[in-house]
Parts: sequence; structure tokens; C-alpha cells
Amino acid sequence: MGIVLGTNQYGKAEVRLVHVDRSTPQHVITDVNVTSQLFGDFTETHLTGANGAVIATDTQKNTVYALARTGGIPSIEEFALRMARNFVDKYDQVTGSRQEIEQYSWGRIETSADGPHDHAFVRSGTETRTVVVTKRGAAETVISGLEDLVVLKSTGSEFWGFPDVEYTSLRETTDRILATQVAARWRYGGVDVDWDKSFTAVRQTMLDLFAGTHSYSMQQTLYTMGQGVLEAHPEIAEIRFSMPNKHHFLVDLSMWGLDNPNEVWFAADRPYGLIEAAVTRDDVPADEAAWAGIAGFC
Amino acid sequence: MGIVLGTNQYGKAEVRLVHVDRSTPQHVITDVNVTSQLFGDFTETHLTGANGAVIATDTQKNTVYALARTGGIPSIEEFALRMARNFVDKYDQVTGSRQEIEQYSWGRIETSADGPHDHAFVRSGTETRTVVVTKRGAAETVISGLEDLVVLKSTGSEFWGFPDVEYTSLRETTDRILATQVAARWRYGGVDVDWDKSFTAVRQTMLDLFAGTHSYSMQQTLYTMGQGVLEAHPEIAEIRFSMPNKHHFLVDLSMWGLDNPNEVWFAADRPYGLIEAAVTRDDVPADEAAWAGIAGFC
Amino acid sequence: MGIVLGTNQYGKAEVRLVHVDRSTPQHVITDVNVTSQLFGDFTETHLTGANGAVIATDTQKNTVYALARTGGIPSIEEFALRMARNFVDKYDQVTGSRQEIEQYSWGRIETSADGPHDHAFVRSGTETRTVVVTKRGAAETVISGLEDLVVLKSTGSEFWGFPDVEYTSLRETTDRILATQVAARWRYGGVDVDWDKSFTAVRQTMLDLFAGTHSYSMQQTLYTMGQGVLEAHPEIAEIRFSMPNKHHFLVDLSMWGLDNPNEVWFAADRPYGLIEAAVTRDDVPADEAAWAGIAGFC
Amino acid sequence: MGIVLGTNQYGKAEVRLVHVDRSTPQHVITDVNVTSQLFGDFTETHLTGANGAVIATDTQKNTVYALARTGGIPSIEEFALRMARNFVDKYDQVTGSRQEIEQYSWGRIETSADGPHDHAFVRSGTETRTVVVTKRGAAETVISGLEDLVVLKSTGSEFWGFPDVEYTSLRETTDRILATQVAARWRYGGVDVDWDKSFTAVRQTMLDLFAGTHSYSMQQTLYTMGQGVLEAHPEIAEIRFSMPNKHHFLVDLSMWGLDNPNEVWFAADRPYGLIEAAVTRDDVPADEAAWAGIAGFC
Repeated sequence: MGIVLGTNQYGKAEVRLVHVDRSTPQHVITDVNVTSQLFGDFTETHLTGANGAVIATDTQKNTVYALARTGGIPSIEEFALRMARNFVDKYDQVTGSRQEIEQYSWGRIETSADGPHDHAFVRSGTETRTVVVTKRGAAETVISGLEDLVVLKSTGSEFWGFPDVEYTSLRETTDRILATQVAARWRYGGVDVDWDKSFTAVRQTMLDLFAGTHSYSMQQTLYTMGQGVLEAHPEIAEIRFSMPNKHHFLVDLSMWGLDNPNEVWFAADRPYGLIEAAVTRDDVPADEAAWAGIAGFC
Repeated sequence: MGIVLGTNQYGKAEVRLVHVDRSTPQHVITDVNVTSQLFGDFTETHLTGANGAVIATDTQKNTVYALARTGGIPSIEEFALRMARNFVDKYDQVTGSRQEIEQYSWGRIETSADGPHDHAFVRSGTETRTVVVTKRGAAETVISGLEDLVVLKSTGSEFWGFPDVEYTSLRETTDRILATQVAARWRYGGVDVDWDKSFTAVRQTMLDLFAGTHSYSMQQTLYTMGQGVLEAHPEIAEIRFSMPNKHHFLVDLSMWGLDNPNEVWFAADRPYGLIEAAVTRDDVPADEAAWAGIAGFC
Repeated sequence: MGIVLGTNQYGKAEVRLVHVDRSTPQHVITDVNVTSQLFGDFTETHLTGANGAVIATDTQKNTVYALARTGGIPSIEEFALRMARNFVDKYDQVTGSRQEIEQYSWGRIETSADGPHDHAFVRSGTETRTVVVTKRGAAETVISGLEDLVVLKSTGSEFWGFPDVEYTSLRETTDRILATQVAARWRYGGVDVDWDKSFTAVRQTMLDLFAGTHSYSMQQTLYTMGQGVLEAHPEIAEIRFSMPNKHHFLVDLSMWGLDNPNEVWFAADRPYGLIEAAVTRDDVPADEAAWAGIAGFC
Repeated sequence: MGIVLGTNQYGKAEVRLVHVDRSTPQHVITDVNVTSQLFGDFTETHLTGANGAVIATDTQKNTVYALARTGGIPSIEEFALRMARNFVDKYDQVTGSRQEIEQYSWGRIETSADGPHDHAFVRSGTETRTVVVTKRGAAETVISGLEDLVVLKSTGSEFWGFPDVEYTSLRETTDRILATQVAARWRYGGVDVDWDKSFTAVRQTMLDLFAGTHSYSMQQTLYTMGQGVLEAHPEIAEIRFSMPNKHHFLVDLSMWGLDNPNEVWFAADRPYGLIEAAVTRDDVPADEAAWAGIAGFC
């Protein structure tokens, strides 16, 4: 028996890039955070510190900026694929690459006098759009997603019927606040996709179904959202969610002679419920390796 | 000579409250974080731990919820005034109070089928609306504000003409990205104000002037914004800004034969410029005590 | 074909517990953050919202506190095992459980007069100790670890010999600062371990080898640390690291006639290198499922 | 009447510097975060964007590194004074400067074989040491401090005797956990001080008195700490504290037939009590301007 190097990857994390498309007076900005990682035969540097095979992480950073200059960022999915192909196609020792990008949302400033401004922008949400592209040899997988989509229903949510087992003290309710911070990731079946169009439609489907579902459990809301996405998007193989149940507790004011008909709530920080699930198709092969390293998705 | 107790205050910080107005099927939610503090004669508890004068911080928390139930939250300014008056008017030992509130922004979920939903909401920005009310005896001061309004201009910003003194290496530029995270606070001259209307108008004025000003320095942009607010709002006595200069550095790609006509930028984290200034009226008395404890406003 | 529920789990996240052992006047405190999750047949709540099988997440929270009362927290590993067994052994529908705990470090306050105090404590580091216990039926896996162990060498680190490929501009160095924030997780081969003793020894081995290794790459330092741990600890099957390369850049002061013989450094935030690898034994079977959901370990 | 520029300052925030003293094989590292700000006649850039008086913030950053090279960082107080004097003495338009520094704590790695290592270090606490130097013309003020000193007593703390006024529901207790995250700042009467010695002694006094005081209120603990510091340190004019009361709630397990003799506690995040006070001398003049911009100190 012996001690050996196992799975490994390395790269440059969180390369912050703002791209300005100035091809018309109406500028377009793309604000992203890129993490580039490589797989391959890098045993030697681990064992002896000999770096003859190591594409420097600094070089990976430079590549982000150079490729942004030569091809722009049509979508984060296309840019991540281009990054991955650049390394895997160019270097023998690089057998694979993982490119992760998050994109921040901006809108144009709406001016009083002239409406949307040509080159002035305002951050438009807490939400980020994400992609993880994994390329192993010729095989490419794209997992798109979003994080920090914070949503809340002020009614239309119940929770009852759970078993009264040991250490249970929770009371049943037929009217509660349901709030969560949606993190969702969906794996595409291929790479020939209209990425922006697909993203926009998936996000809208999730919002429609969060709003429209009368909820008996966060799990049911989650599954309904996933089912809706898969039904509407044959290009998507599976979708996974990590949805905290952000508890809002009704404040008991009876001690002071006040009722509280679901109007005044304490928004708690910790602990919170945490519901995680995949919704998938029964005829699609799994691809667990594509999900490696994505936090919070069981 | 002797050692004595100086300025002091105490209270409950960060009471998280979500209020749901259910008076019509179209619910309205107000999501706030309240910090309640009291001033007065609390020497005894400092010197001996005798708490006969101390309105418990837990009681201050309960008061937030009780007042939200009995009067709702018409605006954070009105609610903060009501909190402050409750304590100062009711208890002899309480000679003053400071009430600080931040409000998180939510919008209705726009559903595909039916438009804006009656009771489903989505967080709509990184930005928070703030208020600090200080009441000392009969004197009440309201300082409204906003935090984390992140804005960026992709052109229309220059920086040149600064002196080439010791340790200067910065180059002049006639076209740079100008980006900041506006924190602004404005002090009203009185308490008879249409708070929501005033807030909305101030925010729009700031966006208009950030977008519309061809900038030669962040200071100039800041002052223009402040001047515009004071000109349009006689109800406001002064306004203060804390505006980081969020640096975006043009990436030099010349080593690889690539130009970079202001398209590819590195968004840096630290260090950042930090510009802070007050814009005020020459006929309005100062009120420094009202600004105590507000971080980052010189 | 059809849409189906995939992998799923649910529970209560971040249950904050401080346990005080008062069995002697010299108190012992244990400060932990527990996340309890269950696997099993929970299809029904996803499909219809019927919750007859759902052990409420609130009940999981109560169980944390009740078990802490009845058995204390001898080590986070033992407590996590006890939590997992409680759920899996007690409920038919629960086929597995994942229990994740992080522990914060405290020391006694050293008083001038009397040395270490019996019941007064001070937080003693940024570092946390972690465990993830996964139980699927009878099979139990323990992955212990630590996060945020921040270390730095001011010399004894080189980086050179990397290929000068496209987009490379990095210069070789034979003397640089090497700094990282070690996150390490190690999987035990069984559950009959002296957990505290093993943890303390693993941590010391890592510090010894970080300090003692003349480094030619972060990968080499990482591997040496992992190898040392496995050599000294037959009870450990494999160890994984996620180690950011926290860059320190030597400041160029030559423009002002100043040299800089590796004394004045700019500590950068982003981007950073990111080195991740497993060190394992060639005769130990893999257990990928045990690593699911652990962020940042490839 | 007219609109005018009020108080203003500008500079470079969060310049991250690691200084390595390599004068002996046993290196010494100093890890700091410097924020440099200037006051003076900068009206022109606000009004017109003409920058002829503006020492660029980039120049302020360069100055941090250059002065670290030429004089090292004997203590953060001395370095901040040197920075302030550099700008005020050198430039006519600069009438004042505010230099704020926070310092992170590191210790040597204790190796098994050889004890403390010469050039390998480990972050040794969550706590930071701070200084704010303000220079206005010839007048110099030094306010030293610390942040994030997290301490807890598992007994020896009571809270009772508070009035049972409207909205009070809190119960009295004669044995509770007392926990806080001390932020303290103290203003020196002059600048001829052994800064490191004074800091170490002040910190120890605070720990001694937090541990040794049987507490009837957080206010009493705070005042006792401040009084002790002033008694022992004639060089200090006043000291201010901001101390959150980090609530630990005893978990009620009676529903399941379990007692809880102060052993199992829920550590809450928000809301928290917030106690802020100054302890001062009755024969020392106030200097409010020196405290401007220090968050959380009333």
C-alpha cells in the first residue's frame, strides 16, 4: 500500500471583469466574476514542486481578459465554454477544465428627462446568474443557475399533518409566511442552446410557480418549480434547488391585549430550514462529476 | 479630579420586523430592521448595577412589535418618530431617544399570466432606505438616507490636472469608468414632511445627476448631486455623502498584440478612493448631535 | 419518459448551541453550529404536500438541544454520530442522515492575578473545527476538518519553472510570501477513534509541515501536509484540501529611488490562486457520497 | 441664502500592507489596513472639477508603501502620526489629515520539533487593534482601540430590578450567560507614549475586569472596565465602549421531562442589546472632532 495523489484541480479564483461593449453609443456592460480551474497530469508539482506542466494561475487570469477582448461575452455560458476549450484544446497535460462564472445584474438608470441612459447604470438586484462549465476531453457539460433570488409569500402557505414524534413542539398552521432565497442550478443536455433566452424563461417559470402554488410544504413548492421548468424546457436534463426556509414567526402580543391577525412578524436569521432536492428525468443519464464542488446541492 | 460617566446610550439593536398590511387582498409588506436606543439618567446602573431606571432592551423590542400592530408603518420616518415619542413622553428618566431603521426593498412578482401578484414578492435591489430619528426633550431631528445604491458610468468621466507631487505615479485620463456605492443621508428642517414622496424624489434627483454630469472628479459629481437635492427640496437642511471610488483599471493587453479601447476592465476591491462631503445651506444652523454614531459621514 | 424526484434531503441548518459543563467550578464551554439533515422516502411531500412522513425541521432543532442535555458534547464527532443514529434508528422512513457541525474555539481568560479563570472565556482564533457525519442505513462515515486556519511564510517559498505559454506574463521568483487559509477535511476509516486526540495531532502535523517545507509550489506544500497526516494517522483514509494562494505582491518603489528587499508587500484580495487536491491511500475504497455537499473540495 | 460645501475629506481607504522585518533571521511581520484621508481647501474640485489642489488618492496609497519602506511600522500609532505629518507638513492646502489603521494579530507557528518558527506564522485571533490619528494643523490626537474581542462568562452575571413598565415581559435572572464583542477606543492626552506597552496593559485590564466583576448589568461591567483603565493609565484622557449584549437564551426542555440547570443555551444572532458609553475624567477637555466618523461610539 502507499499514499497517492487523488483528485486535484487548480486555477485562479474570482477574476473580476467588467466588459463594456462600446460598439454603439448605447453601451452594454457585462459584470462577471470568473474562476478558472484545470485538471490533468499535475502530479509532479505535488510530489516535487517541479512546475514544468503548470499553466500558471496568473496566465489563466490573463486569459480571461484576453478572451474577453477578442470575443466579448455573448453570454456567460459561451464565455465559459470558450475558456474551457482554450485550455483543453491547447495543452496536452490539460485533460479538463472547470470554468465557473457569476454575473451581477445591472439596469440602465432611468432619467427623468430622457428615460434610460446610454452609459449610466444601476445595480438592479441581489441576484446573480451563474454557470459552471466542465470539460473533460471532448465531453462538455453546462450547468446554469441563479443565486440569491429572494422571494416571499405573505399568505397561501400552510404546514400541517407532520407526525407528532419525540421532541416535536411545532404547531400546525394553515396560514404562514413562506420565504426563501432560491439557489437553483440546471444541467443542460447539450451545448447548442440560446442561453440568454433559456435563462430568462427558466427564471420566469420559477417566479410564476412560486407565486402561483398554494403551498403545503416548501418541498412541494420546490418540486412544482422544478417540474415546471423541465416541462417547459426539453433542453434541460435536470434541475437542483437549495432553498432555505426563512422563518417568519408571528409575534404574540396577547399579553398586552393586542391581537395579531398575521400582520406583525419577526424575521429570524438562524436556524433556518433547508430544503434541497433534484428534479430530473427518468430517461436521462446522471452526470455526478459535473456537480462536483457546487456547494449546497446534495 | 475624578473619573466620571460620559455620554451613554443603550437599547436593542436590529429588531427584524416584517409588517403585512392585509386590509385588502392586495397585501403590502414592509420589511425593516429597527435599532432603538435611549438616553437619560442611567448613571446608577453603570456605577452599581442597580437597574431601577432601566427600561429593559427586551421591552424596547416588544415596543417595536406592539407599535407596528397598533399603528402600522406608514413610513419608516413616522414609525421612528412614534417610537422615540413613546419613550421620551412616557418615562421621566428618558430624556432622549435615537431610533434607527433600515428598510429593504421588495417588489411584486410579475407573473406571466396575471401581472403583479397580490401576495407574492421578490427582493428588488441591494439598496436600503434608512432613517435616524433623534429626540432630545422636545427637539426632534429626522435624517433620512439610502445605502448601497451602486451606480456606474462607462464613460463621461475624466481625472486630470492633479499635482505631480512626491509619490505620485497616477496617469491622467480623459475617459474612465466612474463607479460608486452611494451612501447618502439628508437632514430635514422639520417633521412635517411627506416622507415617501420626498425620499422618492431625492433618490431620482441623485440618479439623474450622477448620470447627467460629465465628471471631472468624484467630488464634483458628489457636490452636483447634493446641490441638486437642496435646490429641489427646501424641506432639507443639508445632505451628506460617503462615496467610495470603486476603481476599474483598464487591462493592458499590449504584450499580446491586443489593443483595449476602454472595453476590458479589472474591477478592484481594495484599496478604493473614499470621498465624503456635506452640502449645506449657509443660513441653516448646524446640528452635529443628530449625526452622532452615523458611520462614515465625516 | 417522465419527470421524477431525484436526490433530496431536508433539515434544520445552523442551530446555534452553547453547552456549559458545570460539573465542577471550572466550567467547560462548547460552542457549536449544528445542521441536521435527513434522507429517506419523502416523495409524498414533494408531490402533494402531504407531510405524514416529515419529521419537522423544528423537531430536528429541538433534538439538538435535548441530546445536548442528556449526553453533553464529548466531541463534535460523537455528538454528530448520536444525532444521526437517533433519527435513522428511530424512524422507518428515515434511511439516512447528514449531520454537519462547526465548533468555535475559546480559551480561558488569563487574569493577571489568578491565571486562567474558571468561568470567563475569550474567543481564541478565526479557525473552526468541523465534522460531517453521514449515515446511510448502518454505514457511518465521519469526515473531520478545519476551516480558516490562516498561515503565512515570509520566506522559504519559490515559484519558477512553469511554461511560458500564451498569455503568460508572470515572472519567476525564488523568494516570495506564501500565505493561505487552510480548509482541510479528512475521512476516517471507522468510528472507533479518539476524536479530540486525532484532531489535535492532525492540526499540529499540518502546521509543522507548512512551516517546515521549503516550498516550490503550493501544490507541493499541500501534498506534503496531506502525506504527513496519512503517514502519522492510520485511522484516516484520505484527506482533502482547499487552499487559496493569498497573493502578496512586492511593491515596486524604484520610481522614488527606494529598493524593496522583500519587506513591503501589498496583500491582495481577489483574484487568488486556488489549489484543491485529495491525498489518499491506494488500498482504500473511495466513498464519494460522503463528500457530497461539502463546498470547495473537488 | 445659498448652498455651500460643508465638512469634507477624501483619501484612499483600506490600503493592505504586510511589512516584513528581515533584519534578523527571526522575521517580524506587521499586517495592517490603512485608510488615509485629507482635509483642507478642496472646494474647487467640488465646484468645478478642477483638481489642482488634489493630492491624488493613488498618491496617498503610494505614500503608505514608501513610508513603510523608509521607517517601518514601529507601532500603528507611530506610523499613523508619521503619515499625517507627512501630508500636513508638506502641502499648504492640506490643513489636516485623518489616518485610520487596523492591525491583524499573528503569532509564530509553534512547531513540534523546534518551538516557535522564525518565518512561519498563524493568525491568532479574531481581534484587531486600531488607531485613529487626527491632525488639524499642529494639534494631534491619537485614539487607540480594539475591535472584536469576544468574551463570555458562563456564570457570575445577574439582571433584575428593572421596572415592569408597558410592554415588559422579560423575567429577572440571578444567573445568566454574559457575552459581548468588545469594541473599545481610548483617547490619549498626548503623543509621547509607549504605544505597544500601553495597548497591552489596557487590553489586559479590560480582560481582568470583565472576568473579575460579578455583573448586575452590562453597563456596570462596561463602566468598571473603563474606570479600571483610566485609574491605571494617566496617559489616557477618556475611553469609549460599544458592547453588544450577545444574548444566550436558556432552552426550555421541560416539555420532554428534562431539566436545564443553565447548561444548554441558544446563542441568538439578532436582535441584541447594545450598550455604549464613555468613561472620562472631569478635568479633561472634550475633543469631539477627534471622534468624528468612528462608527458605533455615541
